[in-house]
Amino acid sequence: MLDVRNWFEEVAERTAMTVERLPLDELGGWSRCASTGNIRHDSGKFFTVQGLDVRFPGRAVDAWTQPIINQPEVGILGILIRRLDGGPQLLMQAKNEPGNHDGPQVSPTVQATRSNYTRVHKGRPVPYLEHFRNPSGRVLADVRQSEQGAWFYRKRNRNMVVEVGEDVEVLDGFRWLTLEQVHGLLAVPDLVNMDARTVLACLPVLGRPALGADGFRAALIRSRDPRQGAEHGIDEVLSWLSGIRSTVDISTEPIPLNRIRHWHRTGGKISHESGRFFDIIGVRVVSAGREVTGWTQPMIEPIGTGVVAFLVRRIGGVLHALVHARVEPGYTDVVELAPTVQCVPANYDHLPPAARPLFLDAVLGAPPGRIRYDTVLSEEGGRFYHARNRYLIVETDEDPAPGHPDFRWLAMHQVVELLRHSYYLNVQARTLSACLDSLTSAAE
Amino acid sequence: MLDVRNWFEEVAERTAMTVERLPLDELGGWSRCASTGNIRHDSGKFFTVQGLDVRFPGRAVDAWTQPIINQPEVGILGILIRRLDGGPQLLMQAKNEPGNHDGPQVSPTVQATRSNYTRVHKGRPVPYLEHFRNPSGRVLADVRQSEQGAWFYRKRNRNMVVEVGEDVEVLDGFRWLTLEQVHGLLAVPDLVNMDARTVLACLPVLGRPALGADGFRAALIRSRDPRQGAEHGIDEVLSWLSGIRSTVDISTEPIPLNRIRHWHRTGGKISHESGRFFDIIGVRVVSAGREVTGWTQPMIEPIGTGVVAFLVRRIGGVLHALVHARVEPGYTDVVELAPTVQCVPANYDHLPPAARPLFLDAVLGAPPGRIRYDTVLSEEGGRFYHARNRYLIVETDEDPAPGHPDFRWLAMHQVVELLRHSYYLNVQARTLSACLDSLTSAAE
Repeated sequence: MLDVRNWFEEVAERTAMTVERLPLDELGGWSRCASTGNIRHDSGKFFTVQGLDVRFPGRAVDAWTQPIINQPEVGILGILIRRLDGGPQLLMQAKNEPGNHDGPQVSPTVQATRSNYTRVHKGRPVPYLEHFRNPSGRVLADVRQSEQGAWFYRKRNRNMVVEVGEDVEVLDGFRWLTLEQVHGLLAVPDLVNMDARTVLACLPVLGRPALGADGFRAALIRSRDPRQGAEHGIDEVLSWLSGIRSTVDISTEPIPLNRIRHWHRTGGKISHESGRFFDIIGVRVVSAGREVTGWTQPMIEPIGTGVVAFLVRRIGGVLHALVHARVEPGYTDVVELAPTVQCVPANYDHLPPAARPLFLDAVLGAPPGRIRYDTVLSEEGGRFYHARNRYLIVETDEDPAPGHPDFRWLAMHQVVELLRHSYYLNVQARTLSACLDSLTSAAE
Repeated sequence: MLDVRNWFEEVAERTAMTVERLPLDELGGWSRCASTGNIRHDSGKFFTVQGLDVRFPGRAVDAWTQPIINQPEVGILGILIRRLDGGPQLLMQAKNEPGNHDGPQVSPTVQATRSNYTRVHKGRPVPYLEHFRNPSGRVLADVRQSEQGAWFYRKRNRNMVVEVGEDVEVLDGFRWLTLEQVHGLLAVPDLVNMDARTVLACLPVLGRPALGADGFRAALIRSRDPRQGAEHGIDEVLSWLSGIRSTVDISTEPIPLNRIRHWHRTGGKISHESGRFFDIIGVRVVSAGREVTGWTQPMIEPIGTGVVAFLVRRIGGVLHALVHARVEPGYTDVVELAPTVQCVPANYDHLPPAARPLFLDAVLGAPPGRIRYDTVLSEEGGRFYHARNRYLIVETDEDPAPGHPDFRWLAMHQVVELLRHSYYLNVQARTLSACLDSLTSAAE
């Protein structure tokens, strides 16, 4: 681990990046469209900040408008893997992004928007991209997944894992890490980036760790074994989700940014009049180690740190996670399976206790002995500025809401099975799935 | 079969429906929006005829606009099934629709738009609906699937099969048919409706028919057995589709109907200036046996009969179908797996032979002995007026386009597996899958 730290410090020095805030109107290469107010790049590529009109009849907040990032192109997030006698190794990159909280993070081998790899910004070619565009090795995972549906309009990336032989050249800034090392790094705050976490979640189960003593870890290892049972059969889970997706009554419509209500452009940024949710800010980035050496861009800066948690429970000796069928306005398919808890607690400070998200207090008040994972991790630093969530995995012996129509207990082998297909698990649930997986490596 | 015919004739008499054409501007309850030209129902429910702007850079036709039906609500298409000693039986309905070519068709137990079952039109309640909204029986299939992406904007319906006991009351117009009877009816022109076919396609394999002599039927039965191999593993198929969906460069944007180009409103309908594709027409319907006794509505009337075909081939004794990764502008997820051939041949009459769809001539010129299925079937008669396709299943010994990037040979057990999830197989491929399945019942 010390070794990995040294590598990181060395990269951090070499890829020093300075980020300064800039008023939105002073972003070179980005303009505000005269008729819509949308903020777009002059090339028409990258992404657009526009408005979204959301109607959600019958809910506590039954209509709102908001700014949202529209990035319709599908990028590639890819990890190269090799299997040696000592176990699988992943080719990871130490990569800095302007929104990162504290320098470079452990990133996938390739993290390329389509603008990026079609060279819209005329930068250097993306290393290792050909392994994913024209795989010669075995493809272990290849699935488009959504990203934050509160901030992105129908954004999705192609998550890939491709197996290669040993003869891949290791470029500057890249490094083979064992799966155990990556698992260990997931316990370090703000270190493994979101793109790496979502690809790790889509990695199928490789081999079977030996069962230890009959404890949490054994229940977790059993949970990832498809020969084990589960509280609900997969067809029952699919039918539950199909029903919710068919009947949820939400409608969303892209609108011009200058038609959103209760958001104002002040001080060079766009903020909600309550001071909550997020701001749209501008930044100028100067970097030594990126494809181009300087640029400006809009970013989303969330207000407050989120809490994202799975309640987990042993059922018949098999660990299950309590997933929530959650609506976010930017999802391609309306509803995805989300963590048990996913919120920014500060957004509820002004509301009565009854309005607090279900299970939030159960998670925050859990006895230390039942907290199996607790680390603050960063969201995508290319679009989000210092977006951080406290990720928790909390064990419980009780079902806190038996039969609640919006929640179901899933075994992890069911999560792994669903992750072969698009849009079942949201990006926060994928992070927690990767974090949970990392605990198979940890000593009990 | 005679018995079923008599039942149908009796229903046809009792549910006599007269349909007459009416200029679009004379549809009671439907109005043209002054600013957009969109045709909407005054209740805001049912569906809207609007415009779609399609950009498809690099293709022969790289941009067009068209009218399209927007029906965002998810309806239910459901079949009740019971399993008796003699095999499974399905509760089917003889149902007339204004667009039907020749009277009532064999329809699912329930065929309900959301407007329909929330009683927007204040009609009678939908019989058997509760079996699907709150299933007490075992749910054998429950998956949202797309419909025609050339005519519908992101339309999807929930396809369900629910198993019940023997004690379900059989209402007027309904009848238990054995699976073999339904299979036999699929060989009759215009008899089993589209909604029934798509639900039948989503039905999992029930039992295993005995293998007969080693011929086409044996290869088909093996093809539906998941223990059999396939030309490409399912992960390889998913990765192929993920790649195409991630890189296809199409963009679609809903636009006002009065902004579509090359379409004109003449003679009370909307037509393309070439006379090709389809018209938007108006109809007045007077019915004895429907939820309400009379109404008017816009419909799509296609020009010409389509050809929809699977080329099938035995690979290692297992029948495979050649599926095409096809873009249609109205799909929720850009690309779906479609039949080998799906086109209206007349649309190509004015073009050079090189512009004709791949494999169309191979299908139309196949020797009679290699044609395993050949029946004209109707598309959804609630929205489409006399929309008919000639569905063919043609066996070949050769791979006519080895390695073509847009085509893959799939075993039917792979198709069945993909049909547990949304948006993999398009509605035409689902019909062909049901037709192919029907051949397991036929004598060799």
